[in-house]
Amino acid sequence: MISKTEIENTHNQIAPFIHRTPILTSHILNKICGCKIFVKPENFQKVGAFKMRGAINAILNLSEKDKKFGVATHSSGNHAAALAKAATEIGIPSFIIMPKTAPQNKIDAVANYGGTITFSESTLESREQVLTRVIQNTNSTFIHPYNNRDVILGQSTAAKEIFEDVKEIIDYIIAPVGGGGLLSGTSLSAKFFSPNTKVIGAEPFGANDAFRSIRDKTIYPSINPKTIADGLLTSLSELTYSIISENVHKILLAEERTIVHALMLILTRMKIVVEPSAVLPLAVILENPEIFRNKNIAIILSGGNLDFSQISNYLKLLD
Amino acid sequence: MISKTEIENTHNQIAPFIHRTPILTSHILNKICGCKIFVKPENFQKVGAFKMRGAINAILNLSEKDKKFGVATHSSGNHAAALAKAATEIGIPSFIIMPKTAPQNKIDAVANYGGTITFSESTLESREQVLTRVIQNTNSTFIHPYNNRDVILGQSTAAKEIFEDVKEIIDYIIAPVGGGGLLSGTSLSAKFFSPNTKVIGAEPFGANDAFRSIRDKTIYPSINPKTIADGLLTSLSELTYSIISENVHKILLAEERTIVHALMLILTRMKIVVEPSAVLPLAVILENPEIFRNKNIAIILSGGNLDFSQISNYLKLLD
Repeated sequence: MISKTEIENTHNQIAPFIHRTPILTSHILNKICGCKIFVKPENFQKVGAFKMRGAINAILNLSEKDKKFGVATHSSGNHAAALAKAATEIGIPSFIIMPKTAPQNKIDAVANYGGTITFSESTLESREQVLTRVIQNTNSTFIHPYNNRDVILGQSTAAKEIFEDVKEIIDYIIAPVGGGGLLSGTSLSAKFFSPNTKVIGAEPFGANDAFRSIRDKTIYPSINPKTIADGLLTSLSELTYSIISENVHKILLAEERTIVHALMLILTRMKIVVEPSAVLPLAVILENPEIFRNKNIAIILSGGNLDFSQISNYLKLLD
Repeated sequence: MISKTEIENTHNQIAPFIHRTPILTSHILNKICGCKIFVKPENFQKVGAFKMRGAINAILNLSEKDKKFGVATHSSGNHAAALAKAATEIGIPSFIIMPKTAPQNKIDAVANYGGTITFSESTLESREQVLTRVIQNTNSTFIHPYNNRDVILGQSTAAKEIFEDVKEIIDYIIAPVGGGGLLSGTSLSAKFFSPNTKVIGAEPFGANDAFRSIRDKTIYPSINPKTIADGLLTSLSELTYSIISENVHKILLAEERTIVHALMLILTRMKIVVEPSAVLPLAVILENPEIFRNKNIAIILSGGNLDFSQISNYLKLLD
């Protein structure tokens, strides 16, 4: 359904709008984990997250007529920031629906990137109502954060860059899974560019709907997820479910304590800033040393928009 | 007193033992500051700080006989970690005197790098007594953190790398100043490798002894310094005072609030982990926009050993 050529064309199309993030390695991380880890730091991507890849691709694929009316989404996370930034970069409007209760720093980020914010109540119902109204008023196009073919194509380019830049054989590639956009794209790039690499999704125990959905072959909603990895609270969509079912080897889970441990390892040893959702791949390596021992493993650090005011709360989980 | 050739030889000698850290730039930082900033991220150096350069150089310059007995210092900071790591790398012992009250993470770091720790009371008197006793017992050589020619030679190589790697003219180079080892080395490299670059020292208002010492042409002790930049609490030594007097253009000061602002800019915009002492160069740029407008400026981020449990206290200073 998505071809190798489409991924290649996507990468060429978005290249002028994204950073080609490097591949990092760390002796200390390898020593602690007993394997060789190739880190793809999408925290250094524009807006601090891989989401820029999918957002800009979705916008570039709009018709010229639709572009003029702009794009819309409801999100308080990295997708909202990415959509606002991507729209501003090509000079079109973006309409972002955010709950009144969203943290001020996230509101500021979207506003600074040029998004026009409309506030809703914090319920999903209110968000969707407000979104529908905004779209009716503006004729803008809704860009779903992951149930969108163009978004998934954009996200696939992070893994493609890994397969191009790492010269060694990669045994496993691991991406976090929330709605499944990054994991879907990663699995498609592995299929076409590194078919012997096993693709693993990494999910918190406290938000394990993707794990259960794949196990039971049915899409479970994410009900009352409880995790510090606040980018991974959403459930799979039909599109991401079908791609992940077909192309992903396994979904592994991590406890909150291990997520904090992985977060602090990256912060204090690699000296780079990542958000909790980004470290799930490292957390599942720490929880499953027997699977990964002496393997070559690529991990995608999905974003770096860490809320520093929360660090002391995270550290309490280690006590 | 220190020649160009000595700096070149030092760089060749220590190269196998250090990371050649890259030069980073950030559009956002440049936009905020109104100038072009070239960042030297010594937070990515071994042990997370430039101190590795001076420590390994001091050790490599010992006689073979002295090497066997090892090295000693009293410090609870990055110099202690660097000396322990450097000694371990060439297979000799290191003896580190730390106050009983040192934070556990700093004690663990020195121990993990292979240092033998002896605890003292927290007074300078006790530290020096214990150091003298340890040196008598072990025949080890005391390596002062900055009043040491070989240490200053090592620290000079960070600026040398900047002048080699940045292809544009550098109007200013800014380093933090505590005891003055890094600033001394930086000023010597500027003198030999980029004589038109003005060298600036950056110091907290709350620990402004170097500023006053240079102004009044006398070495003031650092009495009750009060700053979150805990790597900059020490005073100049005779050696660093004389080099800085001769070769540094100016020392500029920053308020605590600006230091926190600069810290958060680096953490949230550049997504790299630095400690408060490291951001003084950025803080003085923020405090003196008229001096630096439209200039090309190199700044040395001296280290990345941030105590994450302190972040919420730092953030309170912004309220």
